[in-house]
Amino acid sequence: MICKNNFKPHLSLAHDYWQKVVERNDIVVDATCGNGHDTLFLAQLAYEGKVHSIDIQKEALSLAKEKIASEQNTADVHFYNQCHSVFPKKIEPGSVKLIVYNLGYLPGGDKSITTMLNSTLESLNSALSLLRPDGLISVTCYPGHDEGLREESAIMEFIKNLSPKKWHCHYHTWPNRPRHPSLLIITPL
Amino acid sequence: MICKNNFKPHLSLAHDYWQKVVERNDIVVDATCGNGHDTLFLAQLAYEGKVHSIDIQKEALSLAKEKIASEQNTADVHFYNQCHSVFPKKIEPGSVKLIVYNLGYLPGGDKSITTMLNSTLESLNSALSLLRPDGLISVTCYPGHDEGLREESAIMEFIKNLSPKKWHCHYHTWPNRPRHPSLLIITPL
Repeated sequence: MICKNNFKPHLSLAHDYWQKVVERNDIVVDATCGNGHDTLFLAQLAYEGKVHSIDIQKEALSLAKEKIASEQNTADVHFYNQCHSVFPKKIEPGSVKLIVYNLGYLPGGDKSITTMLNSTLESLNSALSLLRPDGLISVTCYPGHDEGLREESAIMEFIKNLSPKKWHCHYHTWPNRPRHPSLLIITPL
Repeated sequence: MICKNNFKPHLSLAHDYWQKVVERNDIVVDATCGNGHDTLFLAQLAYEGKVHSIDIQKEALSLAKEKIASEQNTADVHFYNQCHSVFPKKIEPGSVKLIVYNLGYLPGGDKSITTMLNSTLESLNSALSLLRPDGLISVTCYPGHDEGLREESAIMEFIKNLSPKKWHCHYHTWPNRPRHPSLLIITPL
């Protein structure tokens, strides 16, 4: 991926990965729906498929629902107002082509951050079993804030312990931009 | 780049970058010729262009020359038996499309390693001014040996100080494969 004059290389690279892997009738999971920006992009890629979109914040999901409702030719989108640590049972193991995490900044005190860290790790661990053999997990980390830096470190510790015989993990960083967002890609072998 | 069942992802990714950037009549530099494997690949990509190939080891260059001589439809290849810290004057600033470093393992005592480290950093610094505005530098590091690990760390320190307004640096690692080779890509902005 050769990025020129692009100040958000992590975003365009993530989109490239998603576009390469998702086909029109695929099942896709957006584990961090937020305002629905990624969910919409994914629903357009898998326009005859299904997108499961999860967020613990009710207000964010409402905005995302509105965003999707105003678009045509999109996937069947299911929204879940819950923590992403445990995936909805409707999502069958081995069925998902792409699982997206866009971790972002999480306001709150130490206790809630720790909970968030644990739930992200728990979620990533569950995500592995949801993937199809040709599937992909995309994790964008934001170490620009201390909380995001801790989250990225914890994820990297988790990743280091994944068997290299079972999982291919490719980590992208932009080292002359201090604490720039990073992109982690996980695929089954 | 989605690699499946590929145990040398750094090599195939580097080749992908080279293939994307090099056109048939380009000027290319192989700063670490070694046995000429990369020089041949590059001479085939820039088959109507020029490849400048450098190595401090005379024996390695002899093998590389033989390898190139036995092939048809390759670039005009110039070999230089010298340290890569200072590039031959024949290579004009702003003229080169691709500069490749494949650092590998360097045998020898502490003193020679330190010299090697310094010459690599000096070389990288010079390489920046040789690049065309649409050019690319590709550096493969081998932290599997202690010497390679030190070299990689020194390069990353150098890279962190490159202005993000002038240079786009994209670092690729495979974090669940301990001390796996890494790939650094540098492009002008």
